[in-house]
Amino acid sequence: MTQFWSSIVHELTPYVPGEQPRIDKLIKLNTNENPYPPSRNALAAIRDSADESLRLYPDPDATSLKSAIARHYKIQTNQVFVGNGSDEVLAHVFMGLLKQDKPLLFPDITYSFYPTYCRLYQIDWRTVPLNDRFEINLDDYDDRGGAIIFPNPNAPTGRLLPVLAIEQLLQRLPNRLVVVDEAYIDFGGTSAIPLTRDHDNLLVIQTLSKSRSLAGLRVGYAVGHPNLITALERVKNSFNSYPLGRSAIAAATAAIEDDNWLQETRRRVMDTRHHLSRALTERGFEVLPSAGNFVFARHPQHDAAKLAQSLREHAILVRHFNQPRIEQFLRITVGTDDQCEALLNALDAIFSAQ
Amino acid sequence: MTQFWSSIVHELTPYVPGEQPRIDKLIKLNTNENPYPPSRNALAAIRDSADESLRLYPDPDATSLKSAIARHYKIQTNQVFVGNGSDEVLAHVFMGLLKQDKPLLFPDITYSFYPTYCRLYQIDWRTVPLNDRFEINLDDYDDRGGAIIFPNPNAPTGRLLPVLAIEQLLQRLPNRLVVVDEAYIDFGGTSAIPLTRDHDNLLVIQTLSKSRSLAGLRVGYAVGHPNLITALERVKNSFNSYPLGRSAIAAATAAIEDDNWLQETRRRVMDTRHHLSRALTERGFEVLPSAGNFVFARHPQHDAAKLAQSLREHAILVRHFNQPRIEQFLRITVGTDDQCEALLNALDAIFSAQ
Repeated sequence: MTQFWSSIVHELTPYVPGEQPRIDKLIKLNTNENPYPPSRNALAAIRDSADESLRLYPDPDATSLKSAIARHYKIQTNQVFVGNGSDEVLAHVFMGLLKQDKPLLFPDITYSFYPTYCRLYQIDWRTVPLNDRFEINLDDYDDRGGAIIFPNPNAPTGRLLPVLAIEQLLQRLPNRLVVVDEAYIDFGGTSAIPLTRDHDNLLVIQTLSKSRSLAGLRVGYAVGHPNLITALERVKNSFNSYPLGRSAIAAATAAIEDDNWLQETRRRVMDTRHHLSRALTERGFEVLPSAGNFVFARHPQHDAAKLAQSLREHAILVRHFNQPRIEQFLRITVGTDDQCEALLNALDAIFSAQ
Repeated sequence: MTQFWSSIVHELTPYVPGEQPRIDKLIKLNTNENPYPPSRNALAAIRDSADESLRLYPDPDATSLKSAIARHYKIQTNQVFVGNGSDEVLAHVFMGLLKQDKPLLFPDITYSFYPTYCRLYQIDWRTVPLNDRFEINLDDYDDRGGAIIFPNPNAPTGRLLPVLAIEQLLQRLPNRLVVVDEAYIDFGGTSAIPLTRDHDNLLVIQTLSKSRSLAGLRVGYAVGHPNLITALERVKNSFNSYPLGRSAIAAATAAIEDDNWLQETRRRVMDTRHHLSRALTERGFEVLPSAGNFVFARHPQHDAAKLAQSLREHAILVRHFNQPRIEQFLRITVGTDDQCEALLNALDAIFSAQ
């Protein structure tokens, strides 16, 4: 009984997010949430926003937030677009900028929402294989196709491209749009945002869900040349005038301005990632070098799907992708030191029982 | 310099929302916000949400909110879809349900976002003129076209259709989808939601922005047959897995459950609307009968655009639409008694000065 569906609805393959269990006792290392709380200033801003003024619409342009982002990155406010999580920002980017005559290019192993957006907006795309070390080689993007999108660091591999490689790509292909999805950049990479000043073909996307510990708030943003931002604003204002509520704008502004908390928590996550990667290697895992708040690892003697299931029986969730090339990997979010210790203990118990 | 825009971006005509001034002293009767604060329980829920748990993603299905809506209307949870304001819900409805082979029908005078969505999703549409009394006549929708959408009460006219007329339409046209946008239904109308139990071709959309005084939160919902909801979920999960943050879900759930506050504030708004309509009529205005939290009125001796400008000089904002048939009307939000008194005093001052 689908007689009232638009025909496109039949062709969609909705994205399946990582499980959000309702059981509190589970150790959640499956959706790359930050183990540390958000900035106290952000939480205070939410509490302060909970007053009579919520009867009023928010600022449709979220000017305070755009200004805070512009100050933080030393760019202009008209270079900033904001949205309801970076997933909404990405959706508008796919519709407004990535639907071109030539096919969109992205890696074969990457954020699995990209092909979903392509089906939603009927965008033609081609995947470009990662090399055998699961690295993106940007030279592979030169010859064919139109616009390009990739995460840096890539997900779920965690592998980072140096910003110099991105700059060279922008110089080689000045007539092709390059979108860099920097959801995880704060965990050890260098942002390409400064390159937006000199390259009108670069758009950079970031989120407050990971390094700012605000996955529950839903705020993301894009930075690029004002011409690119104008396209996104036109799509946004044809979709929803007010994507960010008053509490979200206030909290996100406070979070961006609290750089000390960002620095402290990202350092803790990077330290724990270092120890976790070493401990996994000691247990026989091959661990890809990660610049995200997760590691991507496989064990030559243990099937990944079975291992994920065994960890689940130890009340630990990790993410397994049943997908060619990476079906033997697990993506493990970097938790607190205690959570990572619990993971290692569970692995030891699983291995010794076999 | 629009070389990187998708071609559709050139064809858009973004919606222009009512002004959100940054000056506090203005009396804002221009965007149909509720003059009374939100439920205290909703505000408490936001404050309670401002804790460490914001580092975690929200429930992608917003189950607690859907359940509260289902209980409130005595329907099933799988008949409910929720989104980031009813504008986002409408956007997904246009893409997922209203893009049909035959053109979409809606009134010539109605919510001006509808043609904007049609351009975004390249939906063919026809407008059906209101009659001379600015009423929707549903018989006019029988002969041609595919799906149908209209607000009830209509905006910006405020005129209400009896739910019986909607039921008869659904019975006459069982193979055509009917979407009723009930943004203002709580201010004096009867909701068509109970009809969704017996009519699989009806979708009803509501918002928390008006009668629940939560325009600053951004929550809306749709109610209909589970088949219609499935289409919307497929679009939503191809666009953004988590459209509602944790604070929004908690506050919206509390607001839906606080029916006493809804009843009290809607009664106050309706009382003030009654007095305001009478006072405007006494001053020579023609006031359309309104079932919304606004009145739509024209004065035979005073040009509407000039009157809006004069009121602005008295620090009072009202909305004027520069559009055929209604360019001599003003849409005036029902404020508090004091705000409406200030409006009437300003009108008296303007009229006596001429």
